[in-house]
Amino acid sequence: MAKVRVNAFSVSLDGYGAGPEQSLEQPLGVGGMSLHDWVRGTQSFHQMVGQEGGSTGLDNEFATRAMDNLGAWILGRNMFGPIRGEWPDEEWKGWWGPSPPYHTPVFVLTHHPRASIEMAGGTTFHFVTEGIQVALDRARAAAGSKDIRIGGGASTIRQYLQARVIDEMHLALVPKVLGRGEPLLTGLDLPALGYSVAEHRTTDDALHVNIRKTPSN
Amino acid sequence: MAKVRVNAFSVSLDGYGAGPEQSLEQPLGVGGMSLHDWVRGTQSFHQMVGQEGGSTGLDNEFATRAMDNLGAWILGRNMFGPIRGEWPDEEWKGWWGPSPPYHTPVFVLTHHPRASIEMAGGTTFHFVTEGIQVALDRARAAAGSKDIRIGGGASTIRQYLQARVIDEMHLALVPKVLGRGEPLLTGLDLPALGYSVAEHRTTDDALHVNIRKTPSN
Repeated sequence: MAKVRVNAFSVSLDGYGAGPEQSLEQPLGVGGMSLHDWVRGTQSFHQMVGQEGGSTGLDNEFATRAMDNLGAWILGRNMFGPIRGEWPDEEWKGWWGPSPPYHTPVFVLTHHPRASIEMAGGTTFHFVTEGIQVALDRARAAAGSKDIRIGGGASTIRQYLQARVIDEMHLALVPKVLGRGEPLLTGLDLPALGYSVAEHRTTDDALHVNIRKTPSN
Repeated sequence: MAKVRVNAFSVSLDGYGAGPEQSLEQPLGVGGMSLHDWVRGTQSFHQMVGQEGGSTGLDNEFATRAMDNLGAWILGRNMFGPIRGEWPDEEWKGWWGPSPPYHTPVFVLTHHPRASIEMAGGTTFHFVTEGIQVALDRARAAAGSKDIRIGGGASTIRQYLQARVIDEMHLALVPKVLGRGEPLLTGLDLPALGYSVAEHRTTDDALHVNIRKTPSN
């Protein structure tokens, strides 16, 4: 059965999934890019951005698995871009250039309606103003038997965790401190929400943890 | 020069240094004991509790280093015991039995005065009611050229971090979620306080991080 997944989501020592003060120049906020050192070295990431080489160990396994069997993505609006409020025009089409790395329908949560955008390589951005449940319903319909990935950011993942609809969540704990930013788990009681650690693995640069929803009675 | 150190302090994925609802039966709160799996397997820990065997790898190195060159300890009152408010009598002498593992003077932060207690093996508990700075001054005087370890709990470490007097802090990030408990870093801006990650190492069960204070100008 199709799963709702979070994958390869990096979290700092102090609990942040991105730095503060996101901008056009710093899509992941101040210091946020450093959270992803472990993934940027992998073959999987190199291939995604059209480069040769990259590591083929366990970090790469997690990075590869993160892109496997996906039929739809859901992103928060800030993960799609730095614009807040009404869309000023149709110009902004995401951080990723003409051929984004999704290759599936991508449902972007926003309070401001906008027409869908078909990009090269199979990615289509749809803008959903009716909330997280509608976005998930549309993503399920689009994904068929494949999985749905909640790409982020932190606030979007928190909302779906609180709604208890995420089946699996792979986090990469990394040895960085940001001091400020977008908290992922702060104040969320994962065990009370039915989540527990299913397995963990360490690499040189990350503590990888798979968290799963306990089947409800 | 003598350093003020935190060592081998375990932190859950969701940022807790101990579980909620500390009690006589659960000194580390509900679920808190599980944070220390990585250390309980080590030779250093086995020796401390008078057992044979134990692992001799990197976890053991961190556990050994944690006990090295210490001249005094500082503990928060809840780390000393489950009693809150006035001391009802002189009966409670810590969680550790007649010969505690400190073997140095131990300064216990409390709002309620109490006479010092000399234990077997070189540990003496002193109760300090004049705040964290006085406790540190007394610990420095007692430690001489040796280091001072801030043993915990989380709230005590937070206070000393905010006072910027901790020189080195070794944290062990572990693959556990507690959901509730005593947060260590939540809301603390370590970089703004002058702290950064100096090095990290991973083992099967932990992401070990050494955090250091940047020398001030």
